[in-house]
Amino acid sequence: METVDTTERLRQLRGLMKQQKVDIYIVPSEDAHSSEYIAPTDARRAFISGFTGSAGTAVITQEKAALATDGRYFNQASKQLDGNWELLKQGLQDVPTWQEWTVDQAAPGDDTPGSTVGVDPTTITAPEGRKLSEKIKKKGGKELVAVSDNMVDWVWGKQKPARPNEPAKVLGLEYAGKKYQDKIEELRKELDKKKAAGFVVSMLDEIAWLFNLRGSDIPYNPVFFSYAVVTPTTVTLYIDESKLKEEAKAHLEGVTIRPYHEIFSDIASLAKEQPASNGTKDGASKPKRKYLIATKASWALSQALGGEENVDEVRSLIGDAKAVKNSTELEGMRQCHIRDGAALIEYFAWLEDKLITQKATLDEVKGADKLESIRSKHDHFVGLSFDTISSTGANAAVIHYSPERGNCSTIDPKQIYLCDSGAQYLDGTTDTTRTLHFGEPTEMERESYTLVLKGHIALDLAVFPKGTSGFALDTLARQHLWAHGLEYRHGTGHGVGSYLNVHEGPIGIGTRIQYSEVPLSVGNVISNEPGYYEDGKFGIRIENIVMVKEVETKYKFGEKPYLGFEHVTMVPMCRKLIDVGMLTAVEREWLNAYHKEVLEKTRRFFEEDERSRKWVERECAAY
Amino acid sequence: METVDTTERLRQLRGLMKQQKVDIYIVPSEDAHSSEYIAPTDARRAFISGFTGSAGTAVITQEKAALATDGRYFNQASKQLDGNWELLKQGLQDVPTWQEWTVDQAAPGDDTPGSTVGVDPTTITAPEGRKLSEKIKKKGGKELVAVSDNMVDWVWGKQKPARPNEPAKVLGLEYAGKKYQDKIEELRKELDKKKAAGFVVSMLDEIAWLFNLRGSDIPYNPVFFSYAVVTPTTVTLYIDESKLKEEAKAHLEGVTIRPYHEIFSDIASLAKEQPASNGTKDGASKPKRKYLIATKASWALSQALGGEENVDEVRSLIGDAKAVKNSTELEGMRQCHIRDGAALIEYFAWLEDKLITQKATLDEVKGADKLESIRSKHDHFVGLSFDTISSTGANAAVIHYSPERGNCSTIDPKQIYLCDSGAQYLDGTTDTTRTLHFGEPTEMERESYTLVLKGHIALDLAVFPKGTSGFALDTLARQHLWAHGLEYRHGTGHGVGSYLNVHEGPIGIGTRIQYSEVPLSVGNVISNEPGYYEDGKFGIRIENIVMVKEVETKYKFGEKPYLGFEHVTMVPMCRKLIDVGMLTAVEREWLNAYHKEVLEKTRRFFEEDERSRKWVERECAAY
Repeated sequence: METVDTTERLRQLRGLMKQQKVDIYIVPSEDAHSSEYIAPTDARRAFISGFTGSAGTAVITQEKAALATDGRYFNQASKQLDGNWELLKQGLQDVPTWQEWTVDQAAPGDDTPGSTVGVDPTTITAPEGRKLSEKIKKKGGKELVAVSDNMVDWVWGKQKPARPNEPAKVLGLEYAGKKYQDKIEELRKELDKKKAAGFVVSMLDEIAWLFNLRGSDIPYNPVFFSYAVVTPTTVTLYIDESKLKEEAKAHLEGVTIRPYHEIFSDIASLAKEQPASNGTKDGASKPKRKYLIATKASWALSQALGGEENVDEVRSLIGDAKAVKNSTELEGMRQCHIRDGAALIEYFAWLEDKLITQKATLDEVKGADKLESIRSKHDHFVGLSFDTISSTGANAAVIHYSPERGNCSTIDPKQIYLCDSGAQYLDGTTDTTRTLHFGEPTEMERESYTLVLKGHIALDLAVFPKGTSGFALDTLARQHLWAHGLEYRHGTGHGVGSYLNVHEGPIGIGTRIQYSEVPLSVGNVISNEPGYYEDGKFGIRIENIVMVKEVETKYKFGEKPYLGFEHVTMVPMCRKLIDVGMLTAVEREWLNAYHKEVLEKTRRFFEEDERSRKWVERECAAY
Repeated sequence: METVDTTERLRQLRGLMKQQKVDIYIVPSEDAHSSEYIAPTDARRAFISGFTGSAGTAVITQEKAALATDGRYFNQASKQLDGNWELLKQGLQDVPTWQEWTVDQAAPGDDTPGSTVGVDPTTITAPEGRKLSEKIKKKGGKELVAVSDNMVDWVWGKQKPARPNEPAKVLGLEYAGKKYQDKIEELRKELDKKKAAGFVVSMLDEIAWLFNLRGSDIPYNPVFFSYAVVTPTTVTLYIDESKLKEEAKAHLEGVTIRPYHEIFSDIASLAKEQPASNGTKDGASKPKRKYLIATKASWALSQALGGEENVDEVRSLIGDAKAVKNSTELEGMRQCHIRDGAALIEYFAWLEDKLITQKATLDEVKGADKLESIRSKHDHFVGLSFDTISSTGANAAVIHYSPERGNCSTIDPKQIYLCDSGAQYLDGTTDTTRTLHFGEPTEMERESYTLVLKGHIALDLAVFPKGTSGFALDTLARQHLWAHGLEYRHGTGHGVGSYLNVHEGPIGIGTRIQYSEVPLSVGNVISNEPGYYEDGKFGIRIENIVMVKEVETKYKFGEKPYLGFEHVTMVPMCRKLIDVGMLTAVEREWLNAYHKEVLEKTRRFFEEDERSRKWVERECAAY
């Protein structure tokens, strides 16, 4: 982790700020699509501050520069920031949020006149922009202005990496399961129900899903830079045409293709013409039809559409539709998880052999590399779905740990090893965590592993009426840890895309209040990943991917469907870490049935691989 | 259930509406304090419509009259409403809410001018008034006006019952546990933290709690009509002075007493004078201190204070403080529940004897009367805390059933009997539900009783970190029913007052999103009452009152306290209805320990009552 001297960068930026009459400039870490992962060209906050963590916001005045980030990154930020920067540790008491800090700078009080705050409106969401703007004015600042030309890009100049221009390729119907034309028709029905003029699609995974296209502009996420606008009569895809080869162009017949950056001027014109109201006599007096954008769409999009008067911000209609997988996608999820499970089994068997039999020295990245090479041999493999967490001992307690090549720990066979990894396959996206021990775990390690496992099983076995959200189920996964005074500080489950982003909304299992607003539905794919972490000692997480299905129940109160989960991840739990005496009869039954299923579904991969076969047979033996 | 001819009442009301230039008049069922139960003098909606259910809103135009109520009351309302009324079944698809109906009447569209809607602003909360007002204007209606003189009262005239004028009596420190002066000091500290000018207290139970006074103006709720205003330097109680006898006056030394109705003019003046800001130099430029009112305070209070500019609507500070019982209150809860448990045991033993041994014929109200007479012999008894639900067979499936004197069912010893009842004692409020069977229950009855019991036990045994809400715990009580495709359509728990209202906020266990905003805290008192109801057949509910306490856990992750429950209700579960084979070892242990505790704590009451002793010993025998 190196420190960059940001003095010259800041000097240039401040010069530009003066020219643009902006007193305070905000540099968020988001790209124009609220992507979780970003392309190097969008890493503006990292460039200007030197801090490379995934979350954080930089705010620059003529005298000061502040970088706000959360607890995961306090250490990294203090190491990476040079003397020009002040670190705002978000979440600590008495530390202002970056918004508060900005407002304080903009409105110093007394008789000092308020300042103008600038931000690139593509890098902040519409609700965020509005809220900040109100606060600045309320406290006596001047205003928040949208500065369309990103000033960091000017400073970055020729050093700035180019926007990726990888092709967007057609995903066959054998993987997508539904024609994109049908998806658009269904979207139009929703637009009609909501009496909306159209939907401006801004999230990259939603566009990829909608058009059955996949790209590779962003690491781990098979998406491509684009926008889309769907109205009752038109479909327009905003994408650099060079990204579309012949096959994709043929596939998109009937879709209007426009250059990526033209979205803003196009929707500005769209918003000015109002669609004729369909056939009512007194059409003129009817309320205007508004355009829908997602709550995570950028302030720039909202502004281009003419602001609140013309725009309704909603939970994305496409996000909701995408979260309900069709039967082809569900079957793809089953199949890719069997192959992925076989890869993990082969890796763990290899790792045990290396560490224990061969007494080899291996570091965490070497392990991850081996796992990737095993995965890549499997059918339909495209790439990893996120940076592999390969962590030994105390590193496993760092929830977002990522081993650094050449600077990571040697895997200690006497410590817990936690591996959280996944891949993109043409037929689905995987994400699995297993925690292993190759030697003799401590009592506390076995006890806490077993408590995590009990929570994992409770959630896997949950049955709940249609309408229940992941918020309501979260406690099931935590109850056994709680009873022992233990807890984990992360959610229990996230939605997973189909050969798309490994994290996707709107569903989730956890205490975020948004999760309470979205009931789980048949066809949802979500992770089940409770854990336990002891700082400086060890970490435990057990993660399967599960799919929501309708289940048979003895009774059926209220004639409504009862739902449950089908697990698709096929990797054994760690025998050495299970204290079977802590399991109830029901839990033991679950474990035996799960291991039987793992063995049956993965065995065929090990016909000529004795090491893996022996390993999986041993781990899956019935209790 | 009789039907009242409302023709003449409506004719008079419409005449008044013309005089007052009000086109549409709304009559909510609330009193001026958002009380759950109301005094007969406030039953205006029942008077004007003839419908006597506890929930509903009447809306009257010159041509039409509509009564909106929810699913509990569809039957009753259709029977009670005469031909003048249209019933709006709230919650059914395509049925407008009463607000939508009102707006439709107020803004008929085309070129018809919009109408003026009137409401007594004491009978609607400030947020409700504001929202409705906005909707009316937005859709083309004229406006919502606050009509201070209630027009139904004019029509009601001399027939209207007088406002109760029962004395407000001092609750001794041996029951209240904290001097009211200390409560006021603590409230002032909160006001100071929130930089508020004062708190206008509108909920009757909050005033009773704050001043350590109890009254009897409203059935079942030991409260008295009043308002209060607490500022950093003043305390004013608005109450008709005749309600205060010598003792109460002496107790309230230092509190300014003002007539009940003067609250409105007083706070209007208060809001005009701004308290001097304390000692800061540039005080003039500091933001104005606002008055706080609860979100359930009336629109009239908000308006008297000058509206949003002067008022912040908050979750009541007193409601929050009141929900955390002090050690005297907690001990009172334990003690009154032991006496109350003894009363229920005596009643159930008597009932079994009557029905089975003596083969007597008994109706539901006779049972309830006997129970009340047994309770009333016990120390510190004041009255019931709500109308006893004494229900046989299919009646038990009606969640809010209340047997009607002279018109109720005979208790069938071959059917389930559900009894939900409670009392007010000087040292606490009780609320207990037990479901019994005196003959041979069906398989399904035993199965569902046992599933409800398993949920009840799961919640009772729950351990959770500080910060967890009742929303997050709700699933624990439902999980076993869900696994069998069963469900209940009510919350799992409500807060309980200390010799105060049997239902109190802000805590609760259930799926209402508000519950997610309030973590459970040490000292909270709450019910644990899962159930199962089969329409037309039977109903099951098991309700204990539990108190939140800190619990010892093996570990203590994050150094934060872990909480759990202490049950205070002391009545056995029904042996005939338990299928012990469905219980886990842990559940059986819980049941045996609970029964042992019940026996130990109640035995002394039965030294000379062999029937009760034998009954409780039989029911509490270990499994």
